[in-house]
Amino acid sequence: MTDPAPLAPGDTAGRPAPVLDWTVAGLADPVPLARALIQRQSMTPVDDGALDVLQAALETLGFSCRRMPFSQPGTPDVDNLYARLGAGGPHLCYAGHTDVVPVGHGWTRDPFAAEIEDGVLYGRGAADMKGGIACFVAAFARRLAEGGPPSGSLSLMITGDEEGPGLNGTKRMVETFAAEGEHIDDCIVGEPVNPDTMGEMVKVGRRGSLNVQLTVHGRQGHAAYPHRSDNPIPRLMDMLAALTAEPLDHGSEHFEPSTLVITSVDVGNPATNVIPGKATARFNIRFNDLHTGRSLVERLRDTILAVQKGRPGTVDMDATVQGESFLTPPGRLSDLLQGAAERVTGRRPEISTSGGTSDARFIKDIAAVAEFGLVGRTIHQADECAPLADLESLTEIYRQVIDGYFAA
Amino acid sequence: MTDPAPLAPGDTAGRPAPVLDWTVAGLADPVPLARALIQRQSMTPVDDGALDVLQAALETLGFSCRRMPFSQPGTPDVDNLYARLGAGGPHLCYAGHTDVVPVGHGWTRDPFAAEIEDGVLYGRGAADMKGGIACFVAAFARRLAEGGPPSGSLSLMITGDEEGPGLNGTKRMVETFAAEGEHIDDCIVGEPVNPDTMGEMVKVGRRGSLNVQLTVHGRQGHAAYPHRSDNPIPRLMDMLAALTAEPLDHGSEHFEPSTLVITSVDVGNPATNVIPGKATARFNIRFNDLHTGRSLVERLRDTILAVQKGRPGTVDMDATVQGESFLTPPGRLSDLLQGAAERVTGRRPEISTSGGTSDARFIKDIAAVAEFGLVGRTIHQADECAPLADLESLTEIYRQVIDGYFAA
Repeated sequence: MTDPAPLAPGDTAGRPAPVLDWTVAGLADPVPLARALIQRQSMTPVDDGALDVLQAALETLGFSCRRMPFSQPGTPDVDNLYARLGAGGPHLCYAGHTDVVPVGHGWTRDPFAAEIEDGVLYGRGAADMKGGIACFVAAFARRLAEGGPPSGSLSLMITGDEEGPGLNGTKRMVETFAAEGEHIDDCIVGEPVNPDTMGEMVKVGRRGSLNVQLTVHGRQGHAAYPHRSDNPIPRLMDMLAALTAEPLDHGSEHFEPSTLVITSVDVGNPATNVIPGKATARFNIRFNDLHTGRSLVERLRDTILAVQKGRPGTVDMDATVQGESFLTPPGRLSDLLQGAAERVTGRRPEISTSGGTSDARFIKDIAAVAEFGLVGRTIHQADECAPLADLESLTEIYRQVIDGYFAA
Repeated sequence: MTDPAPLAPGDTAGRPAPVLDWTVAGLADPVPLARALIQRQSMTPVDDGALDVLQAALETLGFSCRRMPFSQPGTPDVDNLYARLGAGGPHLCYAGHTDVVPVGHGWTRDPFAAEIEDGVLYGRGAADMKGGIACFVAAFARRLAEGGPPSGSLSLMITGDEEGPGLNGTKRMVETFAAEGEHIDDCIVGEPVNPDTMGEMVKVGRRGSLNVQLTVHGRQGHAAYPHRSDNPIPRLMDMLAALTAEPLDHGSEHFEPSTLVITSVDVGNPATNVIPGKATARFNIRFNDLHTGRSLVERLRDTILAVQKGRPGTVDMDATVQGESFLTPPGRLSDLLQGAAERVTGRRPEISTSGGTSDARFIKDIAAVAEFGLVGRTIHQADECAPLADLESLTEIYRQVIDGYFAA
C-alpha cells in the first residue's frame, strides 16, 4: 500500500472518531483497547485522540486523570496523561507512551487499521507500546473484577513524547512530581524489552549513550603530489584505529561491556585526483557504570591527541552525552516480574541492562524502575506486530505482578 | 571581478576577433602571440579561434597546416592542428594544447585580458600552455631569421582536447600518424613541468595512474546492538590499513616510489543510532614501471580478500587504469634540453618522471618524448601567470634545442 502522509495536528477529516465507550468487563481483554489506540495516528508530536481513548478507559476503571501538557520554545507542545487510583502507599506506577515512530516504508497493510491476521495484531505501535499499555489496563481490569481495588496506589504515567525529542514528556512529569511531592515507590516501564519471545528479559537499567563527531583538518592538494599536501584521511583512520584498539571495558556486575560503534565516515570528495582538506567520522558509545559521559570524553580526547601529537593539521571533537548509565539494583519489582513471567511463559527472564535508552532514565530519579513489556523484534519497522498470545501472556504477567505487589 | 560564464561554441558576439596578422620579425617575441592566444576563451571543448591564431602565425613562418578535427559519440567534437615544415629526417615535433581548464573562482583580474603587470603576464593558459607554445614559435622565428630553415622536419602537434576527456585530441592524431606512416623521431611536450623556477626539471616519463572504488557491504542495524548487525566501516578501515601498511615499492631507476592516496571515504549515514549497511572508499595510485595497472589490481584484490576472508558481508572493487607508466630513457633530446636550460638559467634540470599525466602518454607510442616548458606553480588556479623573463628563457632554451637538434 501507499505509505500515508503524516497527519497534521487536528487533521481528523474523514477519519473514525476515537473509541471512548468502554466497560470494565470489556477492558479485561487487551485487544479492543490495543486496536483503538493503534487506530489513532499518534506519530510524535501528534496525539490524534490517543490519550482521550486511554483516559476514557482508565476513568471507566475508576482512575482520576490529569492531563499534563508541556511546551517550551523550539519544540512542539505535547500532551501527557497521569492517571491514579487510590491514596497512600505502596504506590506502583506503570509508565509508557502513546506516541509512535513514523510509518516509514514497506508496509504490506494499513499501519493504522490494527488488522488481525492469523492471530497477530498488526500496526504501528502494536508492540511499541500501545499493545503493552492495553495489557496493563486489562491486567488491572481483571484484578478489579476478581479482587477489587488494591490497598495502596496504582497509577499510569503516559507520555506523548517518548519517540520524539523527549523534552516535553516524562522528563517534565517527573520534575513536576518531584516538585509537588507526588511520591511513587516503584515503576514498571512497559517497553518491549523482550528480544525475540516473551519472558526473556527484565531490564533494570540502561547503558549511557555518547555521540561523538570527529573532524580532522589537513591541507588539500593534488593526488600526484601527496608530499605537498596533508591528507586528513590516514590521520582520521589512525585515530579510529586507536579508539577501537582496546575494548572500553569488560563489563561490570550488572552491565555488558561498553561498545563503540563507528556510524559514519564522510569526506565527500568527488575528484579522483584531489587530496581532500577535511575528513569526518561519527561514532556512538553505549557505556556502562564504569564510566560517566565526562570521563569517557576525557579518555577519547587523550587517545585522539596522542595520535595527533607531532603531526600537521588540526582535529575537532564534538561530544554529546545523550544519557548517563543508570541501574536500579535487582530487587522486589524485578523479582515479581521474573516470577510472574516464569509462571506464565515457562521462561525465567534474565536481568539485563542492555540496549537503547528509554524514559526509565528519567523515572529512576524518583522511583525504583524495572522494564518489561512485549517482544521488540518488529518495532520501528514495517509491519510492526504483536501476536495475540503475547498480549494475553503480558496481561497475565502484569496481573500477577499487581497482585503480588499489593499482597505484601 | 565576476567569474565569466563559459563561452558557448561559436559565441563570439561583442568579443575581439582573433589576431591573424603576424610577421616573422614580430613572432620572434613570444609575448604578442601568448597574449593573442590567451585572449581566445578556449576552455575545452571550445576553441574560440585559438587554433586560427596559431595557424596564422605558423603559416607566416612557412609551415604547412592541417586541421584534424575528430568526433565520436558521447563526446564533444574537437579541432586539432598539425603544422609541419620541411621533409625527411630528422623530424623534431613540438606537442601542446591550446585548450585551457575552466576559469574557476578567485581571479583578481580578467582571466582572458592577458594583462601584463610588473613584468608578469596573467591569464588562463599563460603557463598551461599557451605561453609555452608562443615560446616555441618565437624560438623557431629566431632560428629562421638567424640560421634559415633546418635540414630535416620541424612540426607542431597542437590539440584542443588535453584538459578535457582527451579522446578526440592527441590520441587520435597519433593513431592517424601511425596509420598514415607520418614518422616523427623526437617530440618535446611543452607542459609546464618546472615546479617553481625555470630550469628545474625535464620529464622523460610519467607514472601510471589507477583509480579504485572499494565498497564494503554489511548489514544495517541499531547502534545499541552491534552484535546483531555487521558494521562495514571497521572492515573497510582494516582493508585500507592493509593496503597502506607497506609501501608499494621503493622506486626504480628512473621513477620515484609509487604512491597510494585515499581520496575519499563515504558512508553518508545521518543517524547517530544506526549502524550503516555500506561504506565506500576511493583511492588513487600513481605507479612506476615496477607495476602495470593489471598487476596492481591483482595485488589490491589479494590484499582486500585476505582481510575479507572469513568475515561476513561482501566487498566490491571497481578499478580504472587511467594510464600505464611510461619512460623514454634519457638520451639525445633530454641531453639537449638539460644543456640548453643549464646555459640559459644556470641550473641543470633534473631528469624526472614525477607528477600527473600528460599527452606524452600517447606520443611515446610513436616517438621519443621529453617534456619541458614553463613553471607550473599557478596552473589550474586563479591568477595563473607567467613572468615575461620565463617566456624569454624558455624561448632561448627552445631555440638552442632546435639549433642543437638540427646541427648534428
